[in-house]
Amino acid sequence: MENKKIGEFNKSDKIESFFLVKNVECKITNNSTTNKYLDFTLIDSTGEINAKLWECTNDIENLIKDNMLVKVRGVVNEYRGKLQLKIDKVRFATEEDNINIDDFILVAPYKSEDMFEVVLDFIDKIGNKDIKNITETIISSFSEKLMHYPAAKSNHHAIKGGLLYHITTMLNAAERLLEIYTYLNKDLLYAGIILHDMAKIEEMESSELGIVSRYSTEGQLLGHITQGVSLIENAGMSNNADKEVIMLLQHMILTHHYEPEYGSPKKPMIPEAEMLHHLDVLDARMYDMKKATKDLKPGEFSEKVYSLDGINVYKSLI
Amino acid sequence: MENKKIGEFNKSDKIESFFLVKNVECKITNNSTTNKYLDFTLIDSTGEINAKLWECTNDIENLIKDNMLVKVRGVVNEYRGKLQLKIDKVRFATEEDNINIDDFILVAPYKSEDMFEVVLDFIDKIGNKDIKNITETIISSFSEKLMHYPAAKSNHHAIKGGLLYHITTMLNAAERLLEIYTYLNKDLLYAGIILHDMAKIEEMESSELGIVSRYSTEGQLLGHITQGVSLIENAGMSNNADKEVIMLLQHMILTHHYEPEYGSPKKPMIPEAEMLHHLDVLDARMYDMKKATKDLKPGEFSEKVYSLDGINVYKSLI
Amino acid sequence: MENKKIGEFNKSDKIESFFLVKNVECKITNNSTTNKYLDFTLIDSTGEINAKLWECTNDIENLIKDNMLVKVRGVVNEYRGKLQLKIDKVRFATEEDNINIDDFILVAPYKSEDMFEVVLDFIDKIGNKDIKNITETIISSFSEKLMHYPAAKSNHHAIKGGLLYHITTMLNAAERLLEIYTYLNKDLLYAGIILHDMAKIEEMESSELGIVSRYSTEGQLLGHITQGVSLIENAGMSNNADKEVIMLLQHMILTHHYEPEYGSPKKPMIPEAEMLHHLDVLDARMYDMKKATKDLKPGEFSEKVYSLDGINVYKSLI
Amino acid sequence: MENKKIGEFNKSDKIESFFLVKNVECKITNNSTTNKYLDFTLIDSTGEINAKLWECTNDIENLIKDNMLVKVRGVVNEYRGKLQLKIDKVRFATEEDNINIDDFILVAPYKSEDMFEVVLDFIDKIGNKDIKNITETIISSFSEKLMHYPAAKSNHHAIKGGLLYHITTMLNAAERLLEIYTYLNKDLLYAGIILHDMAKIEEMESSELGIVSRYSTEGQLLGHITQGVSLIENAGMSNNADKEVIMLLQHMILTHHYEPEYGSPKKPMIPEAEMLHHLDVLDARMYDMKKATKDLKPGEFSEKVYSLDGINVYKSLI
Amino acid sequence: MENKKIGEFNKSDKIESFFLVKNVECKITNNSTTNKYLDFTLIDSTGEINAKLWECTNDIENLIKDNMLVKVRGVVNEYRGKLQLKIDKVRFATEEDNINIDDFILVAPYKSEDMFEVVLDFIDKIGNKDIKNITETIISSFSEKLMHYPAAKSNHHAIKGGLLYHITTMLNAAERLLEIYTYLNKDLLYAGIILHDMAKIEEMESSELGIVSRYSTEGQLLGHITQGVSLIENAGMSNNADKEVIMLLQHMILTHHYEPEYGSPKKPMIPEAEMLHHLDVLDARMYDMKKATKDLKPGEFSEKVYSLDGINVYKSLI
Amino acid sequence: MENKKIGEFNKSDKIESFFLVKNVECKITNNSTTNKYLDFTLIDSTGEINAKLWECTNDIENLIKDNMLVKVRGVVNEYRGKLQLKIDKVRFATEEDNINIDDFILVAPYKSEDMFEVVLDFIDKIGNKDIKNITETIISSFSEKLMHYPAAKSNHHAIKGGLLYHITTMLNAAERLLEIYTYLNKDLLYAGIILHDMAKIEEMESSELGIVSRYSTEGQLLGHITQGVSLIENAGMSNNADKEVIMLLQHMILTHHYEPEYGSPKKPMIPEAEMLHHLDVLDARMYDMKKATKDLKPGEFSEKVYSLDGINVYKSLI
Repeated sequence: MENKKIGEFNKSDKIESFFLVKNVECKITNNSTTNKYLDFTLIDSTGEINAKLWECTNDIENLIKDNMLVKVRGVVNEYRGKLQLKIDKVRFATEEDNINIDDFILVAPYKSEDMFEVVLDFIDKIGNKDIKNITETIISSFSEKLMHYPAAKSNHHAIKGGLLYHITTMLNAAERLLEIYTYLNKDLLYAGIILHDMAKIEEMESSELGIVSRYSTEGQLLGHITQGVSLIENAGMSNNADKEVIMLLQHMILTHHYEPEYGSPKKPMIPEAEMLHHLDVLDARMYDMKKATKDLKPGEFSEKVYSLDGINVYKSLI
Repeated sequence: MENKKIGEFNKSDKIESFFLVKNVECKITNNSTTNKYLDFTLIDSTGEINAKLWECTNDIENLIKDNMLVKVRGVVNEYRGKLQLKIDKVRFATEEDNINIDDFILVAPYKSEDMFEVVLDFIDKIGNKDIKNITETIISSFSEKLMHYPAAKSNHHAIKGGLLYHITTMLNAAERLLEIYTYLNKDLLYAGIILHDMAKIEEMESSELGIVSRYSTEGQLLGHITQGVSLIENAGMSNNADKEVIMLLQHMILTHHYEPEYGSPKKPMIPEAEMLHHLDVLDARMYDMKKATKDLKPGEFSEKVYSLDGINVYKSLI
Repeated sequence: MENKKIGEFNKSDKIESFFLVKNVECKITNNSTTNKYLDFTLIDSTGEINAKLWECTNDIENLIKDNMLVKVRGVVNEYRGKLQLKIDKVRFATEEDNINIDDFILVAPYKSEDMFEVVLDFIDKIGNKDIKNITETIISSFSEKLMHYPAAKSNHHAIKGGLLYHITTMLNAAERLLEIYTYLNKDLLYAGIILHDMAKIEEMESSELGIVSRYSTEGQLLGHITQGVSLIENAGMSNNADKEVIMLLQHMILTHHYEPEYGSPKKPMIPEAEMLHHLDVLDARMYDMKKATKDLKPGEFSEKVYSLDGINVYKSLI
Repeated sequence: MENKKIGEFNKSDKIESFFLVKNVECKITNNSTTNKYLDFTLIDSTGEINAKLWECTNDIENLIKDNMLVKVRGVVNEYRGKLQLKIDKVRFATEEDNINIDDFILVAPYKSEDMFEVVLDFIDKIGNKDIKNITETIISSFSEKLMHYPAAKSNHHAIKGGLLYHITTMLNAAERLLEIYTYLNKDLLYAGIILHDMAKIEEMESSELGIVSRYSTEGQLLGHITQGVSLIENAGMSNNADKEVIMLLQHMILTHHYEPEYGSPKKPMIPEAEMLHHLDVLDARMYDMKKATKDLKPGEFSEKVYSLDGINVYKSLI
Repeated sequence: MENKKIGEFNKSDKIESFFLVKNVECKITNNSTTNKYLDFTLIDSTGEINAKLWECTNDIENLIKDNMLVKVRGVVNEYRGKLQLKIDKVRFATEEDNINIDDFILVAPYKSEDMFEVVLDFIDKIGNKDIKNITETIISSFSEKLMHYPAAKSNHHAIKGGLLYHITTMLNAAERLLEIYTYLNKDLLYAGIILHDMAKIEEMESSELGIVSRYSTEGQLLGHITQGVSLIENAGMSNNADKEVIMLLQHMILTHHYEPEYGSPKKPMIPEAEMLHHLDVLDARMYDMKKATKDLKPGEFSEKVYSLDGINVYKSLI
Repeated sequence: MENKKIGEFNKSDKIESFFLVKNVECKITNNSTTNKYLDFTLIDSTGEINAKLWECTNDIENLIKDNMLVKVRGVVNEYRGKLQLKIDKVRFATEEDNINIDDFILVAPYKSEDMFEVVLDFIDKIGNKDIKNITETIISSFSEKLMHYPAAKSNHHAIKGGLLYHITTMLNAAERLLEIYTYLNKDLLYAGIILHDMAKIEEMESSELGIVSRYSTEGQLLGHITQGVSLIENAGMSNNADKEVIMLLQHMILTHHYEPEYGSPKKPMIPEAEMLHHLDVLDARMYDMKKATKDLKPGEFSEKVYSLDGINVYKSLI
């Protein structure tokens, strides 16, 4: 019996560890009309795994729910090329176990409170009054949810605090590139970065663990780009902001995906919008590349990464 | 000397008629540094033609301006495969000439006032209070410009009153199709039709003759679909309308071009949005097909029509 | 034990009802070389479901065949996210059960005989002799199969009598739109609608229940558009029709899918062909949207609908 | 004064030679309302050139017509990067000049009569009675026009006798490849080659010089692929041929352009159709490559060739 | 018990035959944590099949390895629409069984030694010294691996000796087409054919049975086209060859896939490169078509063939 | 008479200034066979303009050549919507005029010598011996031409020293982003940036003024990406470098255009290649955006910029 993390599992390992129940469902086995089993998705900070408890009593069925911390004993198996955990025993964690839920989910490498401070510092650097007001109005209305929201449902930065992590990394990169491309308008760029994905909080529904369960109705019918344009419309109105400022910020939100088929009906027509688009893509890709190669040995290729156009990332020998 | 309309011109015709000056500019001839000439675009209700006045005195240059009515004498020539009018004499029209500017531009076949009445009648048929309020708020803020705005710069319904003509034809078609597809929500469909292109009035700048000179700055950076979503956002707020209603109307505006590359980042997800899209395309195409075949003889093909995917329309013998 | 329709099934329901066997096959279970089971697709008027009879004797294997009506007792289960019926007992329906096969399949909402009358009425409205003759010749050669043919294998109007239902709805819509777009040739449009999909009867092989089993060899090598052009070629010859009429009807058939990748090598060049295309798409989409939302509660989204470009249809709250 | 061919013209050459008038039109000069000039397209066997006769009397205007042979004296000029002939004197050729019109147009390198014999020889090699009959029926109905028809309006084999040249080259290539791919059905392949473009004779209108003036109405509304399918339908019927044979030949015609956007709604499903497609493309490309490099010096690139996907063909040094 | 080949298997057959183990892996059954089974891919000269040995002892697990010849007794079953062999007994083949491994894999129809001779003969026909030297240098460095390498991992010519088979068939076809298109440079064409896919030996790792296990690291990062260009670079340098020759051969390798999305960043600009591309595609397709129809009865369609754009190949009745 | 720069010209200006003759050609006027004129393209540091000298004596024709500095007197005219200079008098510049050719062309804002120093400094920062050697070998073989080569024929950085300017800006940006994305390999990234476009020097032929006249033969047949891969092959060989290093650098060159249709047959599979691609595009776009807006007034749009996907760049009011 080993106390291993999911990322370290090998076929045939016998495991005894704590996990977070991302999802649990009672099902009936294939070849019978009565045999029930519990089908789990378990996660810890290193990954996720499917698990089965083949004998499922009513007791257990009623006790174990999503988002609980449980202690599990079982064997690592392989099914259709993927590892799977066969559970022998499961109980839920108690206070005496003395474990912390944040150790079981993927979280950004910085504390949300600190990252939020960084965002506020950058807002302070915005000189244009109207741009600053609009940014502050919007950020303050989302400040609570920002603490845990991921930046996506399953792509880049799909971790607790991921949206803040994405924004702050981009802000830091932007500050440096402004030293090179000095003709850009700093105010527009910082505001654009802070606001570009803010409406994802309205588009997706996320638990406090940073796990997205579904897209909202409005998210499906309108999408975060259109929702983001409306956020700026409203914040602009309530701040009585200059028309040009509202229009430019809306243009930056509208164009930041660049391609129509990714949701941007217009292409960037100001350099700050162009820069915003590249910072966004670059940060997403650097994140996904890092994640894909994290567990590789030198000389190995990752699985296909769909968010990276389906390539296999290579971990070089040098 | 003949009093002919532009649509009837043949090579070598000697012409003496009235025209509207759509555009006039003073230029210097190719092989000299001093010889000036006036370069005109003349229109009447049947079409437009390029015209040259080779001897251009300062007097004339200062007198003749855009949007004036003029009387012209000249010969029809051909240059690079297109007819061109060589002007011998030009003067502007006086009261005694007793001509009406509306006879010189392309106008919708119904009076704007009457078409506007039709729109109001359809608004009366809308039962849902919020939908009705939003529609009324928006239509009333554009009522004046609606009287002359065309539906496009150079495609379908690019005529004075063209936007109203497009809307009312679609409303009439919708009313009939609702008898067939009875499960559709009449209120949403009528409101969607009335509002779908309303923001074109903000996207384009048109003279009172229904001639679009340019796209507005906001029109270029945002486009009428995004602008239209904001119109509904604002009208919805000011009418304190139901969130669902606002969202559905925004969804209809957002999706009415259907394809991302034509400006719709989402596809229709409710049947009324789907129907709106088809009525829009159908009416545009029926208009363009009619226009393309109007002057053809049976058995002839039109020029390539770019708004119809570049086809040559055929006028059949039966 | 409940007498429920498939559309009403919930997980764990115990069912005792009549169904139509759309398909039945004897298979051997996964982990053995001898255990046989029967794998069914059962349908009734509300939908279809996979069903398993895990103990399969030779008797039952030889008795139960496709297209039979059976009485089934069992439990509703879930497998890979889909409902599945575990059969405890099955027998076939007898005369005493007094059930009617038409109650077990999806059928058009109107009687085929009545819809056929509608088609004949529209043919009567065709003034042009040649168009009328060609239409009558073709319709009469398919009149028997028209009574049950669906309009597609699995997309829109894939129901018994679906082809007639599609045609008559389009004819009714066309009649109304001709009041708006009065310059269209009524004869061409009615004939085009009636004939546009007629060759599907040669392209697909359908049972009398309106269920398509396969595409014919000619259907695969040529397709219903090319086959339809040949139908008109032959009917035109045998009626000694005007060349222009034959060509125009062929052009309408050829172009009604509009896009090359959907089988139309040419685009509509006459307004009647353009209108035919839009009526065809519109009717298919209105049908699919209605079907997708039929069982939704307000506020819900349907599954992805592939024939609607993969969207999830939304059932609005208003 | 030199007696040069068009292909040898250089700027400033003074020319006195015979040409064929491909096209002549009377126009009025740019800066006047009365000065007429004649605008010619002149050709000889080496190419074509635009030519101007700036003083145009009524006499000359009425005498010189399309397709005449003329003797011209003039100077080679350059206008917008292209050579142009300024005509000083023009008269038409008389019997004494003793020149032959075939020396002034692009013609296939073999006599049409000989190439037609080759086609007949290949028909003799077809063993299947029905295939042979259909091929013979169609070829005999077009035998006269085949003598001069080109294979295209402006692409590959756009020369007098070009269609026959294209067919016979493909037949010769097919015969050789049948030695390699022995499992192919020779009868289908030979018939497919002979018939694949035959309907181009109905699609385009060509003069006896092999110059296509326009597409026919039916050619525009249906296209040679659909027309070709009908040819086989009719020839199949009149020969009472086997359904399978008709279907296979129609399939070959239907699929020979391979891509939907080039007019083939289905892809080849039998190896003979696949081979036909490749022989067709290969022969067209080999022709266009040869034509593009004919006048190049080693180390030079040709102009962009649109029929070769816009490449510049390179004439190598080895 | 029958001694059948895989290609002849029907459901429920009881089999006792020899097979080659393409792949074997020990797995744990779905519903248990301990039950192991062996999962095989077995092949013989007629095809491949999945097989299961449900009781797997440690002995057997350790004995049976990839690429071994085994004798198997079992029953043919069907799982998810595919045949599967349930193994009752397995042992490995001994010398007394007197079987030859070449009878169990797919091999080219000619002996590799003979095909290699053909290649050498064609090299002899190359007149240009530099082209000949480069070709010889490269061919000699790969001569050993050429004896067994296939031309692809899973597409056309994925058989032992497949690369040589592909090359020699193309050479024979080229020789014949050079009689038709006489203006082509024979030396370039022969060398281009011989070298076009040579770097596949560096791109893929193949066993001596002609079975590709994986792509090499360099193959994934660069691809055989780029690797092939480097082969010529190096062989050209070491032979001190003419720059033009090196460039032309590199151009031929670079362009032979024609489309950028298939790996060719440039399109053929010399006729020999164009011809090479067509011979390559043609030979691949003729091979795949033949393979797809081999086991069909007349009138039947094959499964979808992905390398043939997803079509179903038809075996005609004539 | 004004001493204006081309960028300041307005219609009707009378000009007397110095220009560089980018191109001069003697032509014959349109309506005559004898009248010659000189057709110029003149440039200075602010732009380029077409100019005509209508009376052209043999003297002048023989004196004025490309790349000369001339003094011109004339009038600014407009022809087909573009400004054009009618030359009254022209002479070439003499020593007394005391002008410097570098003031008449577009040059990078830093001295080439200084930028080259920057590149050398970055090479010094490369720790990996093999990467450093390969980079040094290549850079030293192109050091002379690097001093004046532009980065493109007509797109971004098409100025004297533009290639160095592009490289050094990217290096500076890379250095800053490495502080953010610390897991990247600095050595690979710096080398990749320095080498990515180096083969453009072989692909294009540029004068010492940084003006590209044409693509080289090898550039057209292979392209700078394939040529760059060969550069690394050769430098790697001669430095006896590690295979992995050669492969990784080749992979970076190969993938830096990302899309197959822009010349990259593979996509980036290591993070350094991904970063290189983004730095390249970002720097090109920031350059083109800056250039497009340089002469705009706030609130104006630029012309369509083809290298920026055809957008009109907007100069904002804030």
